[in-house]
Amino acid sequence: MSSAVSCPVTPQTVADVVTAVRATSPLVHCVTNAVVTNVTANVLLAAGAAPAMVAAPAEAGDFARVADALLTNLGTVEGEQPNAMRVAAHAAVDAGVPWVLDPVAIGSMRVRTALAAELLAVGPTIVRGNASEVAALAGGLGGRGVDSLDTPDDVRDVALRLARESGAVVAVSGAVDLITDGVRIARVRAGTPLLTRVTGVGCSLGALVAACAAVTPDRLLAATAATAWVCVAGDLAAEAATTTGSFAVALIDRIDDVDASAVGERSGLMAEAAQVTA
Amino acid sequence: MSSAVSCPVTPQTVADVVTAVRATSPLVHCVTNAVVTNVTANVLLAAGAAPAMVAAPAEAGDFARVADALLTNLGTVEGEQPNAMRVAAHAAVDAGVPWVLDPVAIGSMRVRTALAAELLAVGPTIVRGNASEVAALAGGLGGRGVDSLDTPDDVRDVALRLARESGAVVAVSGAVDLITDGVRIARVRAGTPLLTRVTGVGCSLGALVAACAAVTPDRLLAATAATAWVCVAGDLAAEAATTTGSFAVALIDRIDDVDASAVGERSGLMAEAAQVTA
Amino acid sequence: MSSAVSCPVTPQTVADVVTAVRATSPLVHCVTNAVVTNVTANVLLAAGAAPAMVAAPAEAGDFARVADALLTNLGTVEGEQPNAMRVAAHAAVDAGVPWVLDPVAIGSMRVRTALAAELLAVGPTIVRGNASEVAALAGGLGGRGVDSLDTPDDVRDVALRLARESGAVVAVSGAVDLITDGVRIARVRAGTPLLTRVTGVGCSLGALVAACAAVTPDRLLAATAATAWVCVAGDLAAEAATTTGSFAVALIDRIDDVDASAVGERSGLMAEAAQVTA
Repeated sequence: MSSAVSCPVTPQTVADVVTAVRATSPLVHCVTNAVVTNVTANVLLAAGAAPAMVAAPAEAGDFARVADALLTNLGTVEGEQPNAMRVAAHAAVDAGVPWVLDPVAIGSMRVRTALAAELLAVGPTIVRGNASEVAALAGGLGGRGVDSLDTPDDVRDVALRLARESGAVVAVSGAVDLITDGVRIARVRAGTPLLTRVTGVGCSLGALVAACAAVTPDRLLAATAATAWVCVAGDLAAEAATTTGSFAVALIDRIDDVDASAVGERSGLMAEAAQVTA
Repeated sequence: MSSAVSCPVTPQTVADVVTAVRATSPLVHCVTNAVVTNVTANVLLAAGAAPAMVAAPAEAGDFARVADALLTNLGTVEGEQPNAMRVAAHAAVDAGVPWVLDPVAIGSMRVRTALAAELLAVGPTIVRGNASEVAALAGGLGGRGVDSLDTPDDVRDVALRLARESGAVVAVSGAVDLITDGVRIARVRAGTPLLTRVTGVGCSLGALVAACAAVTPDRLLAATAATAWVCVAGDLAAEAATTTGSFAVALIDRIDDVDASAVGERSGLMAEAAQVTA
Repeated sequence: MSSAVSCPVTPQTVADVVTAVRATSPLVHCVTNAVVTNVTANVLLAAGAAPAMVAAPAEAGDFARVADALLTNLGTVEGEQPNAMRVAAHAAVDAGVPWVLDPVAIGSMRVRTALAAELLAVGPTIVRGNASEVAALAGGLGGRGVDSLDTPDDVRDVALRLARESGAVVAVSGAVDLITDGVRIARVRAGTPLLTRVTGVGCSLGALVAACAAVTPDRLLAATAATAWVCVAGDLAAEAATTTGSFAVALIDRIDDVDASAVGERSGLMAEAAQVTA
C-alpha cells in the first residue's frame, strides 16, 4: 500500500521557495570551515540571503537566536570551532531556529566524527552530506576526506532510518541527490560533475539549505529546493563554462539570475512516499 | 559663516592618491576576518599595494611597525584575533603608522562591540564602517550583522562628533558615502548596489583606505580616494557584469586598470566644510 | 668536468607527471594559511588532485599518514597551526609520505622563522619558496613579508647547499624558477608577472608540488613539473586576460585544460648538472 502522506515537493513549490528566499532575504548564521567561508557567503548573497559568519563562542549563541537559520559545518574543527558549533546549535534548538548540520569528512577522522554524533543528539533540523558522511553519521564506516565512496541510493535505507531515528530531514548529495524525512523521498537528477571540481560547493549547498529552511516549515521541501537551485544553476553554468575557474564564476551568476520556475522544472525532481526495502 | 579650512579633496587630488599607491606599492598589514582575507589581498594587489595578513600576536606588533599602514577589521573575533589587533594597533600608534579600524557588525554583539570601544581609545587614524556600525561605535544602537539600517547622512552628526572626539577621520559607507574629519565632509555619490552583493567589498575598502593613508598625510583625502576608487571601479564593472559572480571578477579588473583621473572624475565627489546641524 | 648524473627532467617527463596527477588524483593534505585555503583547493581540483585541508592537531597526524602527499605552509602561524604542522610533518616522514615545506615570509618574523628551522630539521622532501625565504631558511637574511628581494639565481649556491645539507629538493620561485636537489639544477623560464598579482599563487604552487611528488619518486622532476604547470598555465591565461581578476579565473581554467605536452614544451625548461661556483 502506498503511503497517503501528502507530498508537496513539486516543481512549483520548489520555485516558491526560491522566490521566497529572494523576497525575504533570510539571515543565515554560518559556523563553517575556513576553506569555504568566502564562497559560502557569496552563494548566499547570490541567492538573495544575508550571510553572517559568526564563530566566536561568546557571540555564536546570541547570534543563532536572532538569525533566521543556522548552519554548522564540520570542515575545520580546530580552535574554538567545536565550541562555537555547540553553543550555536543549542541556542538554535532552544529558539526554534532551523539548523542544518553538515558532517564534512566524518568517518575516519575521530575528532569530527565524535563531534558530529554529539551534535546529532542535540537535534538538527536537517542533516546534509554525501553518502559516506551520512553512513558514518548513522554509525557505519566513512570515506577518505570529502570524497564519497557511495551513491546516495546506496545509503537510501540508512538515510531513511537516520531520518526516522533523529527526527531530522536527511539530504544526501551525489549524481542523483536523495532527500528524505523518513516518510517521503525526493530525488534531484540535475547537476554536473563540475560541481565537484570547485571547492565549497557542497558546503555552500548546506548554507543554502539553511536559507530555504528559513522560508518554509516543510524541511524536506527546503532541502530539495536548495539542492535543485544549486544543481540547475550548475547545469546552466556548464552550458557556457567547461573549465573550473570560469565554471565557479558562472555558478554564482546563475544562482543569482536563474528563473525560480526553471529551478523547479529543470531539476529532474521525483518525489515519492518512502518504504524501507531492506 | 562657512569654514575657511582648505579642502583639498578634489577629483585631481583623489587621482593623485590612486597614482601614488600604484607607484609606491605600500605594504598594508591586515589583521582581518577569515571570510575576506583572500578578496582583501586581491583588492590590494589589484590596486598596486602589497598585502600582508599577519595575525599571530607574537608577530603582529613587530610587523605593524615596519608596515606602511595597518588595518584591523573585527569581522571575526575568535581565538587570538583580538590580541593580534591590540598588539598591532599599539605598535602602529607608537610607530606613527596610519591605522584603519573597521568595526564590523558591532552593536548587538558584545565581544566585538567592547573590543571596538577599546581599540577606539587607542587612537586609530581612520574609522570605516556602515551607518549602524558608526552609530554603535559612537555609543548608539547597532544593526543586525553587517547590514546597515541607516544611511550615512542619517548618522552625519554622529560621525562628525565621533571624528571630533576621537581625532579619527570617520568614513561611513552607503549609497552616498560620507567621510569626515570633523571639520570637512566629503561625499562620494558613485557606486552600485552590486557592491553589497559580493562578500568582502566593504572589508576590502577598509584595506584600500589603509593603502591610501600610506601615501598622503591628509587622512580625509585618503579615505575619500579609496572610497571613490572602489565605487568607480564598481560602476565600471557593472557596465559589463550584472550578476554577482562576474561582477566580483570585473570589480578586481577595474580596480586594476581604471584610469586614475576617472576615479576622481566619475566619483560624484562633493566636498564641503562641516557644520553640526543638530 | 660535467656531472654524469642522469637528468630525466625533460619536457616529456614533465608532461608525464601532469598526466599522472590527472589520472590518479592524489589526495593532498594541506596545512596552509587562512588567506589561500580556497584558491589552493581550487588549484588542486583544477589539476585533478584531491585537496584536504585538515589542520586540527588531533586529526592532522592520522590524516597525513593516509594522504598521498603533505604541504605545510607557514603563511599564518596563529593558534594551533604550528602544532598541526609539527604533527603532520612527523607523521608524513614516519609514513614515507612526500612532504613540501613552504616557509612563507620567514626572515624578519621570529615565530615563523624559528618554526621553519624546526620543521626543516624534521626532514621535508621538498622546500619551496622565493629567494629571500630560501636564503632565510639557509641562515641568511630574509625580506619584507612575502616579497622576494633577490632572484633565484642570486641564491643559487645557497639553494644548492641547502639541498645538500638538508636532503630536500629546493625550489626557488621567481622570474626564472630554479629547482635543485644539490646535484642537478632545473630552470623554468616561463611565467608572467601577473602570477605575482594574485594572492595565493605561490602557496598553491606549493600544494601542486606536493601533488606531483605523489606521482613520481624523482622529487626534482616533481617540483619542476608543478612549476612548469603553473607558469605555462599563467602564460596561456595572460594571452586572454590582462587584469588581475580575470587572470585569476583564467589561471584556474588553464591549469584545468592545458595539454600535458604543452606544459613541458612551453616551460622554457633547462636542466643541467650543478656545480657550486662560490
